[in-house]
Amino acid sequence: MRNEGILIVVSGFSGAGKGTLMKRLVEAYDGYALSISATTRKPRPGEEEGREYFFLSREQFEKRIADHALIEHAEYCGNYYGTPRDYVEKELSEGRDVILEIEIQGALKIKEQYPDALLLFVSTPDAAELRRRLSGRGTETQEVIQKRLCRAAKEAGGIEAYDYIVINDDLETCVKELHGIIRAAHHAPGRNEAFIEKMRRELEGKQIEN
Amino acid sequence: MRNEGILIVVSGFSGAGKGTLMKRLVEAYDGYALSISATTRKPRPGEEEGREYFFLSREQFEKRIADHALIEHAEYCGNYYGTPRDYVEKELSEGRDVILEIEIQGALKIKEQYPDALLLFVSTPDAAELRRRLSGRGTETQEVIQKRLCRAAKEAGGIEAYDYIVINDDLETCVKELHGIIRAAHHAPGRNEAFIEKMRRELEGKQIEN
Repeated sequence: MRNEGILIVVSGFSGAGKGTLMKRLVEAYDGYALSISATTRKPRPGEEEGREYFFLSREQFEKRIADHALIEHAEYCGNYYGTPRDYVEKELSEGRDVILEIEIQGALKIKEQYPDALLLFVSTPDAAELRRRLSGRGTETQEVIQKRLCRAAKEAGGIEAYDYIVINDDLETCVKELHGIIRAAHHAPGRNEAFIEKMRRELEGKQIEN
Repeated sequence: MRNEGILIVVSGFSGAGKGTLMKRLVEAYDGYALSISATTRKPRPGEEEGREYFFLSREQFEKRIADHALIEHAEYCGNYYGTPRDYVEKELSEGRDVILEIEIQGALKIKEQYPDALLLFVSTPDAAELRRRLSGRGTETQEVIQKRLCRAAKEAGGIEAYDYIVINDDLETCVKELHGIIRAAHHAPGRNEAFIEKMRRELEGKQIEN
């Protein structure tokens, strides 16, 4: 059953490992495209234009907003972040499942525009593990970790808005689960209208022929 | 994530191979229970009480209807067929996914009583293949085959009521797809309320401890 691609929105607690999961999913299986965000923040050392982000000036970004060239955007710590529409729609129309990593407010905005989008939430097995992973990065102060846990507590209030929740305990297991969930979604009748229509026409024909 | 079992209703065109699929699914993976129907039709040679069916008299069957001991029942060619409630609910509460093979009217009745039930529809790749499989059994007259195709055409009108459609082209592939769809369903937030609640409580706690 070949159909149009599915728009997949991945959210989850900071520290749950979304980035690594997405990278591994795209490596391990065919048919995925990872959406790249636009941002007005400056590139960090090692970041490349069009790989981590599309880096834009505020003027360029605001023009994109005005042109409806972004599916969603948000301002965060004084910088804009947003999802370019053209890339997403091109990949979907070519049958690839497009993955966006985005926080809950953006996820809900996307669901409004793309009601068929699949919303996935990634969690750690428990809160202690989340704290361990945030601390383990070694790059964050206690204050930042505390802030992230506080934000996680808020985000946990929105999980019911998602279609599926996955627990990232073992990376490879979780990648398989994500892939399974996305494959399952391709079997919804709404995503197989052409096949169902064809089957109906054929069955009507079979009643007549003998 | 361990949760309560899912009630899985499998329908599909006569000849699509539902029976073989279900048998193979239960053989290949743990955690499934195949529901056994009650019927008033006489056992055929080789059929065993409690394996193919529970064989009941009309009086016994009607008492079960009156006692609400059947989830659904229907009369077909002068015989009753129905699904015993006690077995289904016991297996679900023990965490097994219970599979019912049932036609569309019964499927819709079950969805009313169990809104969380997962409705799966099995199709052949096309109508010609359906006719080939019906003819290939060698046991059916042309008239019976024609009747089944006629019924299939009607059933095709109801596919949108199902959650998922699978195409039984290659048996093993289709069994894997079914299993994947059912595994995915276990990840719905509504089936993980205990985990989500636990995570919320822990995150609230983490904000306070430091």
